[in-house]
Amino acid sequence: MTTLTESLAEIAQRTRQAAQGLAPQTAAAKNAALEAMAQALEAAAPDILAANQRDCALAQEQGIPSALFARLKLSQTKLEAAIAGVRSVAALPDPVGTVQLHRQLDQGLVLKRISAPLGVLGVIFEARPDAVMQIASLAIKSGNGVILKGGQEATHSCRALVSAIHQGLGATEISPEVVALLTSREETRALLGMDQAVNLIIPRGSNSFVRFIQENTRIPVLGHADGICHLYVDAAADLEKAIPITVDSKTQYPAACNAIETLLVHAAIAAQVLPQIHEALQKAGVVLKGDAATQAIIPVESATEEDWSTEYSDLILAVRVVDSLEAAIAHINTYGSGHTDAIVTEDRAAATQFMNQVDAAGVFHNCSTRFADGFRYGFGAEVGISTQRLPPRGPVGLEGIVTYKYQLEGQGQIVASYSGENAKAFLHQDLPIS
Amino acid sequence: MTTLTESLAEIAQRTRQAAQGLAPQTAAAKNAALEAMAQALEAAAPDILAANQRDCALAQEQGIPSALFARLKLSQTKLEAAIAGVRSVAALPDPVGTVQLHRQLDQGLVLKRISAPLGVLGVIFEARPDAVMQIASLAIKSGNGVILKGGQEATHSCRALVSAIHQGLGATEISPEVVALLTSREETRALLGMDQAVNLIIPRGSNSFVRFIQENTRIPVLGHADGICHLYVDAAADLEKAIPITVDSKTQYPAACNAIETLLVHAAIAAQVLPQIHEALQKAGVVLKGDAATQAIIPVESATEEDWSTEYSDLILAVRVVDSLEAAIAHINTYGSGHTDAIVTEDRAAATQFMNQVDAAGVFHNCSTRFADGFRYGFGAEVGISTQRLPPRGPVGLEGIVTYKYQLEGQGQIVASYSGENAKAFLHQDLPIS
Repeated sequence: MTTLTESLAEIAQRTRQAAQGLAPQTAAAKNAALEAMAQALEAAAPDILAANQRDCALAQEQGIPSALFARLKLSQTKLEAAIAGVRSVAALPDPVGTVQLHRQLDQGLVLKRISAPLGVLGVIFEARPDAVMQIASLAIKSGNGVILKGGQEATHSCRALVSAIHQGLGATEISPEVVALLTSREETRALLGMDQAVNLIIPRGSNSFVRFIQENTRIPVLGHADGICHLYVDAAADLEKAIPITVDSKTQYPAACNAIETLLVHAAIAAQVLPQIHEALQKAGVVLKGDAATQAIIPVESATEEDWSTEYSDLILAVRVVDSLEAAIAHINTYGSGHTDAIVTEDRAAATQFMNQVDAAGVFHNCSTRFADGFRYGFGAEVGISTQRLPPRGPVGLEGIVTYKYQLEGQGQIVASYSGENAKAFLHQDLPIS
Repeated sequence: MTTLTESLAEIAQRTRQAAQGLAPQTAAAKNAALEAMAQALEAAAPDILAANQRDCALAQEQGIPSALFARLKLSQTKLEAAIAGVRSVAALPDPVGTVQLHRQLDQGLVLKRISAPLGVLGVIFEARPDAVMQIASLAIKSGNGVILKGGQEATHSCRALVSAIHQGLGATEISPEVVALLTSREETRALLGMDQAVNLIIPRGSNSFVRFIQENTRIPVLGHADGICHLYVDAAADLEKAIPITVDSKTQYPAACNAIETLLVHAAIAAQVLPQIHEALQKAGVVLKGDAATQAIIPVESATEEDWSTEYSDLILAVRVVDSLEAAIAHINTYGSGHTDAIVTEDRAAATQFMNQVDAAGVFHNCSTRFADGFRYGFGAEVGISTQRLPPRGPVGLEGIVTYKYQLEGQGQIVASYSGENAKAFLHQDLPIS
């Protein structure tokens, strides 16, 4: 274990040094490196697909679950899409070097706050070898080094991909050492303990996997374990909107974290709307569970207390009838995971109250919860969705993997001049952001 | 312990509920509450000072260190200054409700990112009863509930202060329950474990105290344990600037976290500048320690490896001669705490390289490190200074104790319309921020 930790420490040290060389690179240099990476991946496609076939054959021998196998399997199409993704990251604006604040503190004493890379990212993912390409390109674009730890089952694929990435970077101004790959399970634990060397952990995988990571590291974690999203159909809902939004929020991609798990319906409209929702959802293959008031209207299984806290990630929906908007908000703030919650109503005041009082990263009015997504928000890339309270919260684009630093330019100023008797006053005058 | 945790859980629950009522309050209502608080504190001044005298008498009996005693002692002047501070927080712009992003995703589908309170702050401080007033006003202004835990030695003072605050709030639209006070030491531990109820911990105290908090909670902590700041005098330094900046950075307030602990001097200028710096610092009562190259020029004690990582918080300064700008940057990135580091040089390229490559919240050119401060940056109030990489980093104003939420307003839109064949395209058009 000591040897392992030491060798990992060396890897981390090399990645950090390479990242320090990457940080000041221009957007043009970083984009050229991404293009070289894309071309090297294209050239290595036969090797990558062969390595992936080896992983898939081993996985089948070991009988891994079919959902995991589907994520592991890399087809020519999937590979091409991932390479196109590398080029689309190159096309995004550079998140580094943006002036966020520009202020004259006094004559000739000028403060700037400028976005800067975080340092080194630790990215741990299950299966999904295509994540290697996406994450390596996001890291390079944001000026960060990255230590990748893929799932055991994807070892050959990850090695082939990182080898091609290293080859591509080799001919550019960016050191290949900005991207490091770990392959053994023990290294995951060791990585989680490197809070001096790794600045942010990004887990990609199941809820239980993310929760394990969150509970076993002191490094900040970007991600979410739970996605318990709600749709509330208010007394003043337009059913022409409520029914398609319910169906879309539940079924458009039920395994997604932004799909709803619980439907809340106002008592005044329940008898009218529940049979229609029941019918529409049954057509879509959704099994409903309901509280007593729901069961009095539609023939469904009973929902228990546990259902309100369950993320089904499947075609199952819990339904509860509530007596008021306040009761709906209280239910959401009690059982929700702070991801995304929506109201359907024509009552503007009710919508405002809901959006102010529901404590979630996303509060939606008259649209599907499935819009909670970095691409749909126009961020170009999505690094993850965070349900933590502190920013970055909600869908996170490249801006979530950079930080900022304050640069103060003076002409010899000292603080003593601004203190005590005859203290000079500060100007604190904001300057244009160029 | 179970009873304690339970009662604390009840307090946290009440604070959270009160905070939910505070969150949607207007700036006017919050400012009126702050004014009422200031008036109640003025009216209760005799009680507060009497309570503080009781604490001071007990503290003297127990022989607490004089520095701690000085922080505990509340004079009429100190109380008046703190009450003026409450009113100055009222005068700051409201950090809640700011539109940070306004984007049309498609016709009639409009996204806004709006700043919002975090929820409940847990603030733990040593001695300093005046912190109660500052923190309670920052919490109310930012729409957050706050659970305060003062030092044992300030119990009577804190009770008298919070009692006055509660009385002041009693006559306003803000519930007095937004401010809660804990007084027993065991409650600190319990508070650190309440990661469901408390959203941010703000410790105020010594480095070891902050480190203890950081190492014993999973709740995000706003603050810093170390302030190991550097000043680098480059080969191209103007000595007319270098000497006063060195003196100011070290002596203007040596106990502050933004005072320098290590001076780095380029070898090419060392023989010229070190004697002058030595003389100026000796006049100011500073004891120097130096590496061998420094000792060859000025008669000082020898500095060891340990000195490079020591925050003296006192009139002591370690000095090292470096052969290059790169060596100075490497020293800072190895031993620094990422707080604030400065360069003195007339060489623009050297300054740019230093500011790009030094990894710290503040990188300064030709000015004192003592400028690293929320008030001097023009933030109006300083909640703390963070040396973590992720934002908020550096001096943190009110914006560091709020988060944001995404509000999406639709007219019945569903994601299915934007998927698959015949998918509608998103507009992603930024709208003016009003």
